[in-house]
Amino acid sequence: MNQASSASESLATRAATVIDRCRELAGITDMPGETTRLFLSPATRDAQTLVGWWMRQAGLIAHTDDVGNLRATRRCPHDDAPTLVLFSHLDTVPNAGAFDGPLGVLLAIAAIEQLGSTPLPFHIEVIAFSEEEGVRFGFPFLSSLAATGQLTAEHLARTDGNGIPVAEAIRSFGLDPDRIPITCPLAPGTFAAIEAHIEQGPLLDKSDSALAVVESIVGISRMDLTFQGQANHAGTTPMSLRSDAMAAAAQWIVEVEHYAANYTQLVATVGRVHTLSGASNVIPGTVQATLDVRHPKDESRHAAVAHLLTKAETAGALRGVRVHATVQSEQRAVPMDRDLTLKLHRAAERAGYDAQPIFSGAGHDAMILAAAVPTAMLFLRSPGGLSHHPQEEVLCQDVEAALATLLNLLLHLHPHRKL
Amino acid sequence: MNQASSASESLATRAATVIDRCRELAGITDMPGETTRLFLSPATRDAQTLVGWWMRQAGLIAHTDDVGNLRATRRCPHDDAPTLVLFSHLDTVPNAGAFDGPLGVLLAIAAIEQLGSTPLPFHIEVIAFSEEEGVRFGFPFLSSLAATGQLTAEHLARTDGNGIPVAEAIRSFGLDPDRIPITCPLAPGTFAAIEAHIEQGPLLDKSDSALAVVESIVGISRMDLTFQGQANHAGTTPMSLRSDAMAAAAQWIVEVEHYAANYTQLVATVGRVHTLSGASNVIPGTVQATLDVRHPKDESRHAAVAHLLTKAETAGALRGVRVHATVQSEQRAVPMDRDLTLKLHRAAERAGYDAQPIFSGAGHDAMILAAAVPTAMLFLRSPGGLSHHPQEEVLCQDVEAALATLLNLLLHLHPHRKL
Repeated sequence: MNQASSASESLATRAATVIDRCRELAGITDMPGETTRLFLSPATRDAQTLVGWWMRQAGLIAHTDDVGNLRATRRCPHDDAPTLVLFSHLDTVPNAGAFDGPLGVLLAIAAIEQLGSTPLPFHIEVIAFSEEEGVRFGFPFLSSLAATGQLTAEHLARTDGNGIPVAEAIRSFGLDPDRIPITCPLAPGTFAAIEAHIEQGPLLDKSDSALAVVESIVGISRMDLTFQGQANHAGTTPMSLRSDAMAAAAQWIVEVEHYAANYTQLVATVGRVHTLSGASNVIPGTVQATLDVRHPKDESRHAAVAHLLTKAETAGALRGVRVHATVQSEQRAVPMDRDLTLKLHRAAERAGYDAQPIFSGAGHDAMILAAAVPTAMLFLRSPGGLSHHPQEEVLCQDVEAALATLLNLLLHLHPHRKL
Repeated sequence: MNQASSASESLATRAATVIDRCRELAGITDMPGETTRLFLSPATRDAQTLVGWWMRQAGLIAHTDDVGNLRATRRCPHDDAPTLVLFSHLDTVPNAGAFDGPLGVLLAIAAIEQLGSTPLPFHIEVIAFSEEEGVRFGFPFLSSLAATGQLTAEHLARTDGNGIPVAEAIRSFGLDPDRIPITCPLAPGTFAAIEAHIEQGPLLDKSDSALAVVESIVGISRMDLTFQGQANHAGTTPMSLRSDAMAAAAQWIVEVEHYAANYTQLVATVGRVHTLSGASNVIPGTVQATLDVRHPKDESRHAAVAHLLTKAETAGALRGVRVHATVQSEQRAVPMDRDLTLKLHRAAERAGYDAQPIFSGAGHDAMILAAAVPTAMLFLRSPGGLSHHPQEEVLCQDVEAALATLLNLLLHLHPHRKL
């Protein structure tokens, strides 16, 4: 029998504890009545105290680095052994669910608890990143950028809604931004990094599977479009003499949907639409809209964006509406480490699960870490595909499957042996 | 030669004065830097002082009735003679132009100045209505409803953005809402009412004409629609598994535009569209949109509304998006008085102008007065079709044409003689 089956009862209990802890953590919030934990906020401090306590119960001593990441290491007897990082994040989107981020952190702690005193030929560092969602400073991954030496003075100068720069927020939290290059980098001998995370999509749920291993994280183009027509009286302006910015935007939105639906692996979303100073009796003069395009292949994404911008211009030109588009952000597709990904698949198999290969349509810290260290991701089914939502869920059996897979990986992983 | 030609030089000067006065009035505002005059506001008091002064210069004594209308009568020697009302309004939309409303009031004063001591067989009452645009209390025509005995306790209980009811606003202005039934009604012998107003549309400008006479004011249906889909992650939800409320709304908006463009005399506008708690990386779960439908025939308007609501449901059903529609307001089409309208056409002809027949796509106090007294409207060209906009304009030659037409009408009008 494999490891998971032999320890199945205690793994089920541990999985239930992981879920209980995620739910307990969800009660720690900056916004009463919902779960909202922002980077370096009061709720983040309380959440770190609680997670730090759970780390201590697992035999680990936690500390906070100077970008606010909570970190703890299970040391192997050989001080100069290499390090495996297990990570996810503790910050949330506004009005979040309980599992996006915390689940990966608490799975890592549970795996270490389950290991007990089993010797391994590497240290395991658990990192609970402090900033992944990008909510407070309108920019994601600040804390994994710090851990990989990619955080710049420009990042530190970004301000939140109250005009407070990142550097000042760090100081207010009792940390020292000048020490980021000293306290934040991954341990020198880090040889691999693994994040467990909910899928945040419906694919595992639809195929009735517990787990998937991420092949690559899609590239993302984010654009802002302004449709500029002519505001005018809704009663006195005949249809033939209008420059209706909303009608132009609407034609384009339908075309975005149609194009993406017919293009393999492409998703394209017009998420925010707003008729500027709109009124029910005024023909919309200005419409602002966002465009989010994702594809596992950068060249396909670029081609799609170019096509969709042309469509916007055509829809505008039909109505005398000018279209102005600006690139908000561009993120290249990031493949996960091939060898580590195969090892995750193999570990799932040994644990008795069939983890399907998947693309991550969402960005993750794993994208940032991949630039510095071989990185892989394990996805757990999101029931109903729901995420970034208070009703976000995970199934206990899936958490058990993930825990069994991680344990199997840990017990079979050799830092310098390729599959 | 006709009256207008014989007095053309002085009419041109008077027309220029009318425009100057409108511009001077535009400087009286509740909101510095733009023209915004709300019902019973401080700016309204100042505007009434200035217009009252111009009335006095024309030999009239102005007073304010208890809903805040500024009124002055040119009396004819026979006390029991009937009364002709010349009217428009002094309140404005936010960030308005100079002519929507004030132009009709100042044209009336200019016509009376031009008449000098010429005897007429009727009194002329000039009414500068205090509330036409519906901005402060979210409901238009309050002051013409008062003048025609149609203002109800419900109207008086409506509150503004600060929770102040109409009745209290009237008291704060130094007036007495209980006296509305006494001081506001039209004079008992009122036999006709005429409003001059800018077209607020592009038709006269496109046909290079100065004037039009309104046949009827269109009926208006105003609806609020909510498209209810499922918010979800823009990266992780494949196109085939989405319930995108914005895509459904967009398909519908294109269909609204297409349908109205192919239906004679119909205008339909989706003026305000808003993705509720939208974000660039979230599939829109809820979209709110308005629909404004206008047609000179009520039955055509009703058919169009029914058709467009079906289209919304179909666009929703294709995507698992539910559509909820509520009627915000329903306004029947109001024909102008046939005889008075013919007399206006005849007067324009005599003055040397060809006033085309037109539908008013906008609502006006004339709609309200028509329920109580034979009413007609004269439209002046809106250059560029622009209105409800700081760059709203009128041409001096068109104001002269309107003045000549009104004078011709006054000089040939016999209260009890049909054309």
